[in-house]
Amino acid sequence: MADPQNETLTGAEALVSTLANNGVSACFANPGTSEMHLVTALDGEPRIRSVLCLFEGVATGAADGYARISGTPAMTLLHLGAGYMNAGANIHNAGRANTPMINVIGDHAVPHLRYDAPLTSDIVGLAGPNSRWIKSANRVGDTGALASEAFAASFGPKPGPVSLILPADSAWLEGGIEGEKVTPPALRSVSKAQIDSAVEAISNAAKPVLIINGTALSETGLQAAARLKAAGVRVLTDTFYTKMRRGAGVFAPERMQYFAEGAMADLEGSDLMLTAGTQPPVAFFAYPGKPSLLVPEGCDVLDLGDAGTDSAATLAALADAMGAKESAPVETLNVPDAPTGDLTAQAVGQSLARHMPENAIVSDDGVSNGLMSYIPTQNAQPHDWMMLTGGAIGMGMPLALGAALAAQDRKTICLSGDGAGMYTNQALWSMAREQADVTTIVFVNHSYRILNIELYRTGAGNPGPTAKDMLSIGGPDIDWVQLSTSMGVPAAEATTAEAFDEALAEAIAVPGPRLIAAVVPG
Amino acid sequence: MADPQNETLTGAEALVSTLANNGVSACFANPGTSEMHLVTALDGEPRIRSVLCLFEGVATGAADGYARISGTPAMTLLHLGAGYMNAGANIHNAGRANTPMINVIGDHAVPHLRYDAPLTSDIVGLAGPNSRWIKSANRVGDTGALASEAFAASFGPKPGPVSLILPADSAWLEGGIEGEKVTPPALRSVSKAQIDSAVEAISNAAKPVLIINGTALSETGLQAAARLKAAGVRVLTDTFYTKMRRGAGVFAPERMQYFAEGAMADLEGSDLMLTAGTQPPVAFFAYPGKPSLLVPEGCDVLDLGDAGTDSAATLAALADAMGAKESAPVETLNVPDAPTGDLTAQAVGQSLARHMPENAIVSDDGVSNGLMSYIPTQNAQPHDWMMLTGGAIGMGMPLALGAALAAQDRKTICLSGDGAGMYTNQALWSMAREQADVTTIVFVNHSYRILNIELYRTGAGNPGPTAKDMLSIGGPDIDWVQLSTSMGVPAAEATTAEAFDEALAEAIAVPGPRLIAAVVPG
Repeated sequence: MADPQNETLTGAEALVSTLANNGVSACFANPGTSEMHLVTALDGEPRIRSVLCLFEGVATGAADGYARISGTPAMTLLHLGAGYMNAGANIHNAGRANTPMINVIGDHAVPHLRYDAPLTSDIVGLAGPNSRWIKSANRVGDTGALASEAFAASFGPKPGPVSLILPADSAWLEGGIEGEKVTPPALRSVSKAQIDSAVEAISNAAKPVLIINGTALSETGLQAAARLKAAGVRVLTDTFYTKMRRGAGVFAPERMQYFAEGAMADLEGSDLMLTAGTQPPVAFFAYPGKPSLLVPEGCDVLDLGDAGTDSAATLAALADAMGAKESAPVETLNVPDAPTGDLTAQAVGQSLARHMPENAIVSDDGVSNGLMSYIPTQNAQPHDWMMLTGGAIGMGMPLALGAALAAQDRKTICLSGDGAGMYTNQALWSMAREQADVTTIVFVNHSYRILNIELYRTGAGNPGPTAKDMLSIGGPDIDWVQLSTSMGVPAAEATTAEAFDEALAEAIAVPGPRLIAAVVPG
Repeated sequence: MADPQNETLTGAEALVSTLANNGVSACFANPGTSEMHLVTALDGEPRIRSVLCLFEGVATGAADGYARISGTPAMTLLHLGAGYMNAGANIHNAGRANTPMINVIGDHAVPHLRYDAPLTSDIVGLAGPNSRWIKSANRVGDTGALASEAFAASFGPKPGPVSLILPADSAWLEGGIEGEKVTPPALRSVSKAQIDSAVEAISNAAKPVLIINGTALSETGLQAAARLKAAGVRVLTDTFYTKMRRGAGVFAPERMQYFAEGAMADLEGSDLMLTAGTQPPVAFFAYPGKPSLLVPEGCDVLDLGDAGTDSAATLAALADAMGAKESAPVETLNVPDAPTGDLTAQAVGQSLARHMPENAIVSDDGVSNGLMSYIPTQNAQPHDWMMLTGGAIGMGMPLALGAALAAQDRKTICLSGDGAGMYTNQALWSMAREQADVTTIVFVNHSYRILNIELYRTGAGNPGPTAKDMLSIGGPDIDWVQLSTSMGVPAAEATTAEAFDEALAEAIAVPGPRLIAAVVPG
């Protein structure tokens, strides 16, 4: 069955060229000895840009950002079970974002596994829970076919990260066979019957509400959402969505509140909840005596498909079936005045609204400061906003790195908490090496501020000195300007709104990576 | 059954006080919302020192170092499945070191799990493969009993990391009951019959060799090893052992070579291999056409117990049974002259031999530079040397942090590659906060140098530009002095042997954390 031209391919070469044939154009890598043949295979594959990351969580966060912007999965290169675990938190986040991603995990040669060498681990066991699909290419002849399978599986039924384990001997042996070019499964459509029941349910509801994510947050999805809004359906996004088009000229849905009690008060009286591209909203955490499911008592829930569904098409079909011809108004451009005085998250948002160029990309891992920066940008130039979806902080900088490499003609802005940024600070080095056009804004409050809020909300009592220490990341205060420049990213600190506005204007004017340490109240 | 005094304990309090009652004295923590009640429980427990780590891999590496020095497991505090994965690589390493460790993993409240909130994950699935024991305290009344069970399980049958999952409601509810104070299982002894067969096998062997790890590397273990050596048994340690006493006055066994071909050449002709506190040696990685098991053809293997066995006692029993009265010579103190000229790993080792104070602790994650620093210190003041056991680089600085906190009257030296150090650079911040008495030496060669060697050895071909980029961590060069000072650890760079010697003398003279960027050839 082998193409005669392919007979001298190694397994690694067959894997890499299969992914390239299928349109994979980036590999975020942290290789080790067992991946050396993959490294040389990538060396011979000009269609894939290889990006070295100094920590695996950077690689997977970047692969997520790359795919959210390009629509095509990136591959990662991870070193056995330990490398997979280092990569794991951002794979979790990517899973929650329903981002296609192909994690290629090098393993020991198959005959070596039985000897239990120091790096041996149960990779299938470790990676299985966070993989939409997982297989090991235990025979060199299978590497290409499994690469095709992995590529397709990353698109669904529900898109997400897949794991392809490549034992070292399957990589180094000759006899690799290129896999097929596959057509990834398309997003599903909801049936006419489902649309009809939704129309009927809406017509019978006093206060219908629609929760959206996925392709519903694209420009066309939001056009349909604006029609539903005009027809009397309240439209909200998930609190933490994958990617949304927003800004001037775009309809802005509301956003689900983070805190359960606020969300429940806000939804009070809603008697119908439709969900498209998502699932019924759930409190991020449980709290004593507070609800988990954020659906009011007596409110019916109607499922219009998960992230494997084309929810933009769902919304358009629903609007058509309702005969919704009008649209709710879109946002107008509003360039605010330069902020003045103390630097706050809101002032950061104001400056962003002033300086973000058209078609910018925002990676938001701003934690307790995210929301106040989010609001003022609703009337900025049109842009794409990406959220931390899975709650594992430390995604913002890697996500921005990947997004910037996927869209080199666009400016990427990263918002990161200081606590969040520390998990994956190594992303700065890859930004510098690749000269990624990312302006990173770190909210420096020397605190896990969100935890100070959560400590109170969980009723865990008044914090004593030990507890306070556990929630403070001051003492010593991290010098983000030094940290950033140590890895090659020029940086500045701003302690006033005026200084921030100036630093942001400058960072955006110059291509390439920059960091601004935005000192905000703790 | 509850002690009336305990009836108002929360589950978190019962867990924490049970561990404290059992002698746990340190908690390395990176908490989140689901761990708030654990944080306040730790706040009320003066017997446990809580240490905040800004990345979970720092927490588990530090817990490993703490236990290697104190002999008692530390607890960690991790935030759900994502936190566990961030912690995972150093848990893997600790497993390979057979270090007892109690990982307490916060989870969502049990009734919250079914709603699949963003941070929900299959923690048992993720953590199971790297846990000697794993249970979830799904009822508040069980938290204390399971803490006792976890403590005992961390000691064996084979010591290592255990996972205790604590759902948030089991933490916050009242009704916690303190668990028992348990006697950890003692290390096992080998039988007289095993010793007798070993004696007989040795008497019949032409070239017997003994591979040792575990307690055989303690001072008493090495005294017994010296007797066996004098009686004609060649004694080698594992290439990467957990902890060994070495230096002046101590018998120095040989060390297994890292590269398979070197090890096999070295062992040629050995006809009997005894293993005590370890398993038969295995090549770290597989290479095309090279052996995996590092046991010569025709060499018999005799197992004298794994890491769950007291191998110091095994060696003493064996030496007694052989009537071995003489001892091989111990090392003599040799303070070398100050090194001069270009800075090399060997010069670093020479300076260490000059300046390391008596009873220092070394954490070795020096990768390609480790060995050349190791050799000259064989004649230094007596000290303990700890290795990276599981091959997941990024352990050195966290391990040094934990060791230093376990032995505050001793100096800890950390040797780290620059590539290795980047995985867990956040350890520097915790060193600064805790004023840990650690001198960190980073070998700066701007390269994954070991991979340049391995690329050649695996026969992966000549590296082109992409492959070269994947193995180089220069471009941009990381400024380790800035990186270190950004997190509060004073630092200096040395590019000559003279400058290094001076910087090391100064760092060792002053208590508290210091870093030296030792620029060595790439």
